[in-house]
Amino acid sequence: MAKMEIDAIFAFAKTKLEQFGCDEANAAATARTMTTAERDGSHSHGLFRMAGYVKSLKSGRVNGKALPKITIAAPSILRVDGDEGFAPLALEMMREPLIEMTRAQGIAMCGITRTHHFAALWPEVEMLADAGLVAMATTQAMPYVAPAGGREALFGTNPQAFAWPRPGKPPLAFDQASSTMARGDVMIHRRDGQPVPMGVGIDKDGNDTTDPAAILDGGVQLAFGGYKGSAIALMVELLSSSLIGERSSAEAKAAHNGDGGPPIGGEFVMAIDPALASGGDAWAAHGDAILTKIENMDGARLPGARRHINRAKSGPVEVSDKVLEEIAAL
Amino acid sequence: MAKMEIDAIFAFAKTKLEQFGCDEANAAATARTMTTAERDGSHSHGLFRMAGYVKSLKSGRVNGKALPKITIAAPSILRVDGDEGFAPLALEMMREPLIEMTRAQGIAMCGITRTHHFAALWPEVEMLADAGLVAMATTQAMPYVAPAGGREALFGTNPQAFAWPRPGKPPLAFDQASSTMARGDVMIHRRDGQPVPMGVGIDKDGNDTTDPAAILDGGVQLAFGGYKGSAIALMVELLSSSLIGERSSAEAKAAHNGDGGPPIGGEFVMAIDPALASGGDAWAAHGDAILTKIENMDGARLPGARRHINRAKSGPVEVSDKVLEEIAAL
Repeated sequence: MAKMEIDAIFAFAKTKLEQFGCDEANAAATARTMTTAERDGSHSHGLFRMAGYVKSLKSGRVNGKALPKITIAAPSILRVDGDEGFAPLALEMMREPLIEMTRAQGIAMCGITRTHHFAALWPEVEMLADAGLVAMATTQAMPYVAPAGGREALFGTNPQAFAWPRPGKPPLAFDQASSTMARGDVMIHRRDGQPVPMGVGIDKDGNDTTDPAAILDGGVQLAFGGYKGSAIALMVELLSSSLIGERSSAEAKAAHNGDGGPPIGGEFVMAIDPALASGGDAWAAHGDAILTKIENMDGARLPGARRHINRAKSGPVEVSDKVLEEIAAL
Repeated sequence: MAKMEIDAIFAFAKTKLEQFGCDEANAAATARTMTTAERDGSHSHGLFRMAGYVKSLKSGRVNGKALPKITIAAPSILRVDGDEGFAPLALEMMREPLIEMTRAQGIAMCGITRTHHFAALWPEVEMLADAGLVAMATTQAMPYVAPAGGREALFGTNPQAFAWPRPGKPPLAFDQASSTMARGDVMIHRRDGQPVPMGVGIDKDGNDTTDPAAILDGGVQLAFGGYKGSAIALMVELLSSSLIGERSSAEAKAAHNGDGGPPIGGEFVMAIDPALASGGDAWAAHGDAILTKIENMDGARLPGARRHINRAKSGPVEVSDKVLEEIAAL
């Protein structure tokens, strides 16, 4: 493990992205996304993603000089055309207009299209919660997950993120795949020769299995919590594609050249001003009381709490040597 | 089993509610809610609920002559003060203003407070989808469910409903508790001496159990799908109470007199115009293609499909003799 300062991770990532064709704005936004992931201990969304980003630049599939364009589609709807770039710049550009619209309208949404999303969703919902707004975000992916009872991959791992502001404290923020296990984790289990728990996926004949290779090679992943998680995956698929005029997970796969980088796709982001929705300021203490009960309950913890603990630490973070070697070899 | 025509169920329910103190408007709306549940085969939300409705009228806790008041809280937020009545009249009154606001603004929400909700959520999201809108609804309840890892009941069974319009077909609509099993089903398992599956709840010592009595007597229910379902339950709790200025599940319990009727509480309802969000009409065929793939996939089915099959049947429906006897005895 190498130790790297946060600023050094950012500079390293930005330089690499520029080297492979990103302009300054796209390189900086994408590097910031990887850097915040490393800072919060989400290494699977940190420099680990660099190889994929670079491969999709090298194959010419992603526009490293994308200029996202924001339009007002309705009084409470923004649309961002991502110009076939990576998602982070589109998300950063959306932040202020969406906050402003939500404060004026009470609730607002943004449909982000023609971007390549390869990161967690908590950065976008947390940045809205930091502005005092309640936020939700969803994105589709590539078809990896079968609907409950079925055997064919139809949904992406389709994450849903939600954030709730806690004035004076880090916001509550969860960000969870609607698959039982993240795809990267299934791959890591295969690499390490470890079985996965039952419920993660089925093999090519539709049988339950704990063999990650059987799931990845012709099998399919399952949604968390049976038919209820499958319904969530379906909702995420519709919100992140049909609703905003983007490709479904299946269509994103068809548009992919297999270079190992992120698929093209869309993101649904929604924000609500809790002061306007509740008609006052009592919402903050009321919500905080519910969250504090969980923090104080034996055995329970708030979703996302580990990220905020990691964030509060100062100093350098550990970065995998293997990841650095892979980046050096690009 | 008695056979009753749909119209007869409505007339019977409305008369009973009027007999125990509802005015015509509240009796009709509440009877319609029970009638649509019977029509769709959701008997647990049909006449089965009459005894609870009546008990809460008899104890004086619910206002049978409630006059819900609708206000515009922000350009895209409605608020409905339910005047401490049953929820159905407030929901019916909200329908047209929310549809109108959503079509004008693109996205809109409604916070419904001071109502007593004792029904499914799919009627409210389906009525919005029937108008061509995408809809989501959540409500809190009484504290029955522990956060993942904890042993104390904090969340209600906290359902989330979602509907997606399919022009020319019944909408997709799911409506699911964030607990593994609905509370009524745990009670029915106890009554019938049947074990529940592992994961439904824990006993008073925090041990996993399949004994419904051990869950109901001092134990606690669990969320579906482990910590991910628990995060959904938390989101539902915050949206349905703190966000809209209503009581949490714990506060709703504290305000309850134990008469067996529905708790007081709130509901979060949100609607989006897919034509405005997607910038055209392609959303309908695009979403329908995803849904059709599930309908045609071996072993899979769309959430809520059974309800629409039941609805398509004409003629009388079967009503439990026991339920009718219980109503006659009120």
